[in-house]
Amino acid sequence: MPTPIDRRISASHLCYRFDAALPPAWRVRPGEWIEAEVPDGMAGTIQRPDDLYRAVDPDHVNPVVGPIYVEGAEATDTLSVELREIRVDAPQGYVLIIPGFGLLRDRYPAAHTRICRVADGAVQFDEGVRLPLDPCIGTIGVAPAGPGISTIMPGDHGGNLDTTDIRQGATVYFPVSAPGALFGLGDPKGVMGDGEVAGTGLGVPITVVMRFALVKGWRTARPLLETRRSWMTIASAPTLEGACHLATADMVGLLVRARGITREAAYMLASLAGDLRISQVVDPWMTVRMEMSKDVLSLTLPPP
Amino acid sequence: MPTPIDRRISASHLCYRFDAALPPAWRVRPGEWIEAEVPDGMAGTIQRPDDLYRAVDPDHVNPVVGPIYVEGAEATDTLSVELREIRVDAPQGYVLIIPGFGLLRDRYPAAHTRICRVADGAVQFDEGVRLPLDPCIGTIGVAPAGPGISTIMPGDHGGNLDTTDIRQGATVYFPVSAPGALFGLGDPKGVMGDGEVAGTGLGVPITVVMRFALVKGWRTARPLLETRRSWMTIASAPTLEGACHLATADMVGLLVRARGITREAAYMLASLAGDLRISQVVDPWMTVRMEMSKDVLSLTLPPP
Repeated sequence: MPTPIDRRISASHLCYRFDAALPPAWRVRPGEWIEAEVPDGMAGTIQRPDDLYRAVDPDHVNPVVGPIYVEGAEATDTLSVELREIRVDAPQGYVLIIPGFGLLRDRYPAAHTRICRVADGAVQFDEGVRLPLDPCIGTIGVAPAGPGISTIMPGDHGGNLDTTDIRQGATVYFPVSAPGALFGLGDPKGVMGDGEVAGTGLGVPITVVMRFALVKGWRTARPLLETRRSWMTIASAPTLEGACHLATADMVGLLVRARGITREAAYMLASLAGDLRISQVVDPWMTVRMEMSKDVLSLTLPPP
Repeated sequence: MPTPIDRRISASHLCYRFDAALPPAWRVRPGEWIEAEVPDGMAGTIQRPDDLYRAVDPDHVNPVVGPIYVEGAEATDTLSVELREIRVDAPQGYVLIIPGFGLLRDRYPAAHTRICRVADGAVQFDEGVRLPLDPCIGTIGVAPAGPGISTIMPGDHGGNLDTTDIRQGATVYFPVSAPGALFGLGDPKGVMGDGEVAGTGLGVPITVVMRFALVKGWRTARPLLETRRSWMTIASAPTLEGACHLATADMVGLLVRARGITREAAYMLASLAGDLRISQVVDPWMTVRMEMSKDVLSLTLPPP
């Protein structure tokens, strides 16, 4: 049965910063089912192989639909967004090589664009390679504490996390720093590998069905992600090692609180049962998550 | 039906370096089924919670069974080892916090040891947490080109790769640098998370059933791993970013050769379909792998 939609949000208002100073474009209530149209990360400007993108402009890339003001959200809360459905209706998507961007930028100085057909639940990369469509949301977050941040950047507020697990069925949690949270989302992918090594996944517009909720009076330090099977701490930093340190320390903290074990036991348990996983290595900060099975971490928020 | 064993190798000769200058302890032929007893990474010295390990001594940690001389292996070849079976018979294993070692060493200055019972295919971490036994081999490799390397270090020769996919059913490929390859393996785990954040998985002795083969006249630059479903390039470097760069460039090279596509197409395909995954962040170089489904990378070695 399709989800009954309470609010429809078009891509009529886009912004390029997560910023507490931006005026809200929409106001919604927790619990409302929202259907949002989300443009691709290049705002539809890449349609043919000769549409090249020659340099990342942090003020005009990764447009997000927003800011969305969530009624009742305060800077002492955590905002959750449940991604009920993600649909890809577009007939094609793009993948780019961008000069100065991407993990192997030292080896690929020239701009390239490839257009891939999308049909029947698959991405046709070339005659021989069909990849199952597996959409995720690249950029998703809330206004940060302090100055605004370009939507090209990941951080504690979320942003350009490029995490493949931010897909249909997941719930993502963010620390609220401004009244109404000022949520935004953009930069969807039809398919992407962990790492996003060339700098983009398959850019496509999507339609998302989602709803917000609030954890009142408890504020997560960084994004968390919940799937049916696991919890993930998500962290971004200038280096992968720095991001790993944060994601691991956050997971250890959750294990201590949820299981009532010592911090030494929690650290050892993370070493045996936690999976540190690369999200992206290009944005230009790095993002990783640590995943822990719900068999080990049974958690309701706020943590005990 | 159990595999008929051609050769049995006990843990009677251990070494602490991968080194072309070490005399072989065993000589075997490609194709022979070998059953090897492999001691835990602390050579059995950690049996009780008060057996503490206070500092990593690179000359006396991670003993490997070896060197094993494989007849016919030359420095222009690739050696493969097929891991047919890994058995854990020990009733317990250990997990450690080691001062100065581990991702959160800044937060955990003191040594701790935890002993976990192993029974019925599971690891009992505490009263509430049972983890399925999922053994892997932490240290595995061949003599490097140039000076010998401590078994605590990972590198192009293999070594302390601490990669959870090096488990029963996998085949691992190494570049031969010395006559006979001088293979060794050690540091087994009963279970380990990707990252191995505290610095150890669950240390246990194991029994391995394996056989060697040679890819004559083609030498991989770094370790490769094959499972039923995928190929992985494995790379180690002082930073995770450096290891990611190597593993990605290696995978792009394999895609170009196996699929006959341009290097730009291969890089984009890696961005869409390759998963960069953390192996370990503690050894003290970092190890990652890039995984590619055999649906995308259908490869026989040597590559075309």
